[in-house]
Amino acid sequence: MDNRKIGVFDSGLGGLTVVRAMEELLPAESIVYFGDIARLPYGSKSKETITEFSHQIMRFLLQHDVKAVIVACGTASSNALEELQSTYDLPIMGVVEPGARAAAKATHSGRVGVTGTEATIRSGAYERLLQLEDKQTEVYAKACPLFVPLVEEGWFDDSITAQVITRYLAEIKENQVDTLVLGCTHYPLLRTLIQKEMGENVTLINPSRAVVEELRAYLQENQMQSSTQQGQYEFYVSDSTDKFQAFGRKVLEIPSLTVQKVNIEKY
Amino acid sequence: MDNRKIGVFDSGLGGLTVVRAMEELLPAESIVYFGDIARLPYGSKSKETITEFSHQIMRFLLQHDVKAVIVACGTASSNALEELQSTYDLPIMGVVEPGARAAAKATHSGRVGVTGTEATIRSGAYERLLQLEDKQTEVYAKACPLFVPLVEEGWFDDSITAQVITRYLAEIKENQVDTLVLGCTHYPLLRTLIQKEMGENVTLINPSRAVVEELRAYLQENQMQSSTQQGQYEFYVSDSTDKFQAFGRKVLEIPSLTVQKVNIEKY
Repeated sequence: MDNRKIGVFDSGLGGLTVVRAMEELLPAESIVYFGDIARLPYGSKSKETITEFSHQIMRFLLQHDVKAVIVACGTASSNALEELQSTYDLPIMGVVEPGARAAAKATHSGRVGVTGTEATIRSGAYERLLQLEDKQTEVYAKACPLFVPLVEEGWFDDSITAQVITRYLAEIKENQVDTLVLGCTHYPLLRTLIQKEMGENVTLINPSRAVVEELRAYLQENQMQSSTQQGQYEFYVSDSTDKFQAFGRKVLEIPSLTVQKVNIEKY
Repeated sequence: MDNRKIGVFDSGLGGLTVVRAMEELLPAESIVYFGDIARLPYGSKSKETITEFSHQIMRFLLQHDVKAVIVACGTASSNALEELQSTYDLPIMGVVEPGARAAAKATHSGRVGVTGTEATIRSGAYERLLQLEDKQTEVYAKACPLFVPLVEEGWFDDSITAQVITRYLAEIKENQVDTLVLGCTHYPLLRTLIQKEMGENVTLINPSRAVVEELRAYLQENQMQSSTQQGQYEFYVSDSTDKFQAFGRKVLEIPSLTVQKVNIEKY
């Protein structure tokens, strides 16, 4: 038994999809969440900058007595995870490996599509991991830089969003994949339209859920579960808390969310 | 005569539209440019964070022997300019005042539309300044958060971009403005589609050009012009320089652009 918290971080709001999965799958675990909304999005930034920002956030989370950390950001997972794992002495899980494993398990045809930010796609992390699972896998990857701003604009069920999806996914669709990874934590919020575009026979992989399933298995194996009845959640962000609160209430479907601002550049 | 440089800063690439106007209107002036691409976009951030980032950039520019600074970013101009002007002892010009003055001069009907980022529109700076010029002016303002990512995606002459423009500008158009301010330095790159949507009789105001015209007048009045034949340009950014170089070559139509990376958080 281990009642310390789980650290979760993201470039902004998208990581709340991980928190939502934890509410459902690991309700006894407490969470300390950091959203780097002053410097988001990470998706267009370089590996070096993404890594530096991630180190600052790790140093912040380590002051909160965490037993494990989930890098909920697809971009940070694909660009900075190895460096973080080799620097800090606690389990750190990204969304990319669990997402790739879930996709490898789901595909029958061996044809998998991957969507993500520019930095995630540029890293080639999903291709590498999918081919590590099965070197026959054919991977069709596409950066979708407009998905995040469309989500943040709240245009979920929308004709313009549908056209952007059609354009970005055209090549993946032509290649007749049977599985599509939603490789950025914002993308599950476009799930309905993406499923419609791809057709009902294509399995959509939500790495936010996959990583929480792997964390649950890890905590069980290592007898590190929390013994509390109900986890406590703390939220920290690097900019004004209003937008985060509004979005958080919507994604997590909880009436109130206490959020504190942190000067992350000091860490 | 004063051969010191002009400092120009923006959250990223958009401020290059100011550099382009300087090439044309003030070719003898040298420029030191800073683009905060590691932390862009500013448009969704709070006034406090925008101000803090702007101070760091001012401290950086002041180490480069500048005689004046243009805040080329609409968001920083509308949120941080007064604070910067009261802190530093040199002329600092934003794009908002020149843009508002140019719009006030252009309008006949007294009905003016203003577009910009969330933070620019939230600041109310254009309304305030337009009504200071003429308190009868009716201002219709609209935040257009998808314009910047559409420009960065390079979708300039594009059916999806046209639909986004139609949606964002619907209310401004209904209100029959005769003048429309392009209140973010990225927006002039969508000028053709915006003009098409608004119709040929609506005057589009590009504050990037307006601020350079005011700077030219200021330098003349104060006899602070450069005596050199041809200005020298130095470019600095806070993240990887590749994207900036490619975009810069395109906007400025110059074959090569030397760009250096700076760790701006140290300033």
